[in-house]
Amino acid sequence: MERYEEEEYLACCGSTQFAKEMVKASPFASVHEAVAAARDIWFNKVDVNGWLEAFSAHPQIGQSPSPNHPAAAAQWSKGEQSTALATATTSTLQELLDWNARYRHKFGFIFLICASGRSTAEILADLKKRYPNRPIVEFEIAAQEQMKVTELRLVKLFSSKIKSTSKGDQ
Amino acid sequence: MERYEEEEYLACCGSTQFAKEMVKASPFASVHEAVAAARDIWFNKVDVNGWLEAFSAHPQIGQSPSPNHPAAAAQWSKGEQSTALATATTSTLQELLDWNARYRHKFGFIFLICASGRSTAEILADLKKRYPNRPIVEFEIAAQEQMKVTELRLVKLFSSKIKSTSKGDQ
Repeated sequence: MERYEEEEYLACCGSTQFAKEMVKASPFASVHEAVAAARDIWFNKVDVNGWLEAFSAHPQIGQSPSPNHPAAAAQWSKGEQSTALATATTSTLQELLDWNARYRHKFGFIFLICASGRSTAEILADLKKRYPNRPIVEFEIAAQEQMKVTELRLVKLFSSKIKSTSKGDQ
Repeated sequence: MERYEEEEYLACCGSTQFAKEMVKASPFASVHEAVAAARDIWFNKVDVNGWLEAFSAHPQIGQSPSPNHPAAAAQWSKGEQSTALATATTSTLQELLDWNARYRHKFGFIFLICASGRSTAEILADLKKRYPNRPIVEFEIAAQEQMKVTELRLVKLFSSKIKSTSKGDQ
């Protein structure tokens, strides 16, 4: 049975309500059970203010996390963006920054995408495709992308704990 | 051609972005044209923060508007709730207040309904029916109710201006 702290769940998804509900729902018999609970909490219980809170905990795509992000979240975010950063040129990165600014101006929150394994060109294409959406439609898409990020991070959280426990090195 | 100030549009819908965009889109040849513009602005341009801002400009159903609401909005709100207040008993009003608090706790914003001509019992039944909704679903329903209120208020705004102009008494 796995049991984690509120802060560890907060590194998976930056909504305080999400983290508190995950602690309440734990312990989990497996990461699969944790992911199922996380989906239910995120889509059915966390309110729209909680969604906005979680979105604002992300660095902008193509930028480094700010120093007040939890260390685990910052490290994970870097890993998730590694393909994007490796495939970026100065001009695509600039274009991404410009479109990010347009997106944020229209929607009032940063462009959120599960960037894992995706190139800068793919991310940019998605941003341009999503930009014409109505704000409420885009709000829900961003929440779905957040859930994908949360799932990946829960898997990392659970596997890191198991590894460090079995090795006894932490 | 009708032209109104930002503050007058703000009394119809408490989102600053909405009011600014209405001024930009004006003058309007008729109230129908103004309503069409308002629908487009509200659903396609105002972001989710603007929706929350507009929601928070309403008094809770069954309560008086706070003193910092625009005078016109406060008066309109009273009129819109007149059927509800006339049909309320001490116990239904208390039940409404209790359910309002539950709703607000779950969704993070007040229960919004176009109350015009509706009794306390009808409003309470709607609140209970909407309460189980997912937060994002309820967010969009609340925005649709806000738009109904906005439409009624735009009609009042335009008719009051026309009346006072034709009578020359204001």
